[in-house]
Amino acid sequence: MEFSYYMPVRVISGADCVLRNANVFDPFGKRALIVTGKSSEKNGALSDVACVMHQLGKTYKVFDGISSNPSAQSVREGAALARSFGADFVVAIGGGSPMDAAKAIAMLARQDAEDIFSHSISEDVLPMIHIPTTAGTGSEVTQYSVLTNDRQKTKMSISAPFLFPKIAFLDGKYMRDLPQSVTVNTAIDAISHAVEGMLSVRANPITDALAKEALKILMGEYASLSSGKYSAESRQNLLVGASVAGMVIAGTGTTPVHGMGYSLTYFRNIPHGRANGLLLPAFLHKCAEKIPAIISNISAALGMGIADFSKKISALLGEKEHFTDTELHDYAHRAAQNRNIHNCAAFFNEKELYNVLQEAIGNHG
Amino acid sequence: MEFSYYMPVRVISGADCVLRNANVFDPFGKRALIVTGKSSEKNGALSDVACVMHQLGKTYKVFDGISSNPSAQSVREGAALARSFGADFVVAIGGGSPMDAAKAIAMLARQDAEDIFSHSISEDVLPMIHIPTTAGTGSEVTQYSVLTNDRQKTKMSISAPFLFPKIAFLDGKYMRDLPQSVTVNTAIDAISHAVEGMLSVRANPITDALAKEALKILMGEYASLSSGKYSAESRQNLLVGASVAGMVIAGTGTTPVHGMGYSLTYFRNIPHGRANGLLLPAFLHKCAEKIPAIISNISAALGMGIADFSKKISALLGEKEHFTDTELHDYAHRAAQNRNIHNCAAFFNEKELYNVLQEAIGNHG
Repeated sequence: MEFSYYMPVRVISGADCVLRNANVFDPFGKRALIVTGKSSEKNGALSDVACVMHQLGKTYKVFDGISSNPSAQSVREGAALARSFGADFVVAIGGGSPMDAAKAIAMLARQDAEDIFSHSISEDVLPMIHIPTTAGTGSEVTQYSVLTNDRQKTKMSISAPFLFPKIAFLDGKYMRDLPQSVTVNTAIDAISHAVEGMLSVRANPITDALAKEALKILMGEYASLSSGKYSAESRQNLLVGASVAGMVIAGTGTTPVHGMGYSLTYFRNIPHGRANGLLLPAFLHKCAEKIPAIISNISAALGMGIADFSKKISALLGEKEHFTDTELHDYAHRAAQNRNIHNCAAFFNEKELYNVLQEAIGNHG
Repeated sequence: MEFSYYMPVRVISGADCVLRNANVFDPFGKRALIVTGKSSEKNGALSDVACVMHQLGKTYKVFDGISSNPSAQSVREGAALARSFGADFVVAIGGGSPMDAAKAIAMLARQDAEDIFSHSISEDVLPMIHIPTTAGTGSEVTQYSVLTNDRQKTKMSISAPFLFPKIAFLDGKYMRDLPQSVTVNTAIDAISHAVEGMLSVRANPITDALAKEALKILMGEYASLSSGKYSAESRQNLLVGASVAGMVIAGTGTTPVHGMGYSLTYFRNIPHGRANGLLLPAFLHKCAEKIPAIISNISAALGMGIADFSKKISALLGEKEHFTDTELHDYAHRAAQNRNIHNCAAFFNEKELYNVLQEAIGNHG
């Protein structure tokens, strides 16, 4: 029972929670930098926030220069805008990319960092309010900011307790028109977070309890994910499930599933959640030999064996991409360098990671 | 899925966690007021904290004037000492009484309050580090301070987000010599917290997940509770289980079980946990008619039906106290005024509360 647990984000969930909790924005200052992707103008989240800002007499600037898998360069642009505007706080609206970028922006707005990836982050960070518009990353409840590191050709995370948002608003209505592929990929990301949290050496009774609840909620929406038909309740369930899974990895970190997946995203532009989905079942299959008791707990939480889980994830993923053997060796080599290799209760060396990649996405034809 | 959730306490669990995490005390300032009961000198907690203080070159004063069910008067004395000493932070060591008192002291050290129970608490509160030496109250992870209100002849809680401790250290070794009666009463309090959280109108997926985990851990130690024999692991389990149950009520609040129990403690000096244990089974029995689905979830989490649970709790409680019918009517009347009457998914009017009391502790002979 040696563990530590810290989850300081205030989570507010429900229909119209932003509009209905305008007072929550009040203590954070007069000037907000809103960090977002291009789609938040369509999903209604930006206009809800703008409405609250007007209501409270606050001013804001919108920075929508964040693309998928944001680079250190784009967060520096956002931070420069935050400084010139004199922002008191940051509101992040969007999926993982804007939400993660917002954390780095909130930090760089107050701290100079030569190399953002090796910077030692102090507590002087603009306070943040996060509003997810996809249900997957969990960034709204984590201390992680995953950015693209072009020098090392991978995604890397910066992490510090000061990067937790103050508030996370969870309103599934912003996901009403989310494309099916994004919905499925992000849901798989959330499922992977909950499962990887249970595999972590840092798993503890609290993160395990949250992981099981997240899997119950997320797998409970499998029929929606499979059919592509979502009620308002399904959307809210997926969002809450993804946030609960985010709370898990805030405590546990991720495993080599993420470590390997980063290469699929960096080199082949495969969406992050899909990358995890391609790898997770084969990884669990290999884990079953090394840590059978944990895999049996995960099966119980999923309500099915690993083989059935694999089939269900495969059905969601559809046709898989093809990879050369050279690619797999390269990805295994890179994943073996990632620090999350030491975060899994089962250790995998480079050869074993290659075997997982081979089973998961190798050319079996 | 309309809910909010906030649990900002950093929980650090494990053997010797205070000594091994001295650095955690560092940012809180140079001068500590240590609030404790009389027994912390014997259980080793005070000497661990003193050791860390010396190591870090901090000074401290010990205020051990806190008795069971502390009054507003005793917290005022503690606050006066905090002011005269110039305390930068508060370290609370003990069971529910010192931990709850420490919160009011940390508040009164910085804010003047004519009537502590109707005072509107601002964020200017000394930061707190809580170290429980009983496994029950969960005060180390809640925003509540339960004090005795002699004017209204009951226990009343003050509550504010600023009353959450910053840190909770969980080390079961401080409970090594805890008497069996205290161990059992506090464990029953924790079980009651988890169950009452599931009964609350504010229950949500996160608090339910935590409640189920707490019940799994706590009921998993039933054999220890029943035999009075505790390994170091059992002690740690009971402590972690009680803290997880505390996280539940931090989100949900309690129900009329606590509302009725306060009278048993105020008028008959029955320990708080025992009071809840005397009332909880009969309350669940009546709830089964009003909210069968929730009771069935609770049964699943307990791993047994309500009838079996009643027998197990009764076995721990031993011979019950006797009450007159006048007492029961008075307690029902008082509980019907308590605000937690509206916090339960099943509403109980005064007559129904009387019926619960009658079934639980009435004179059936």
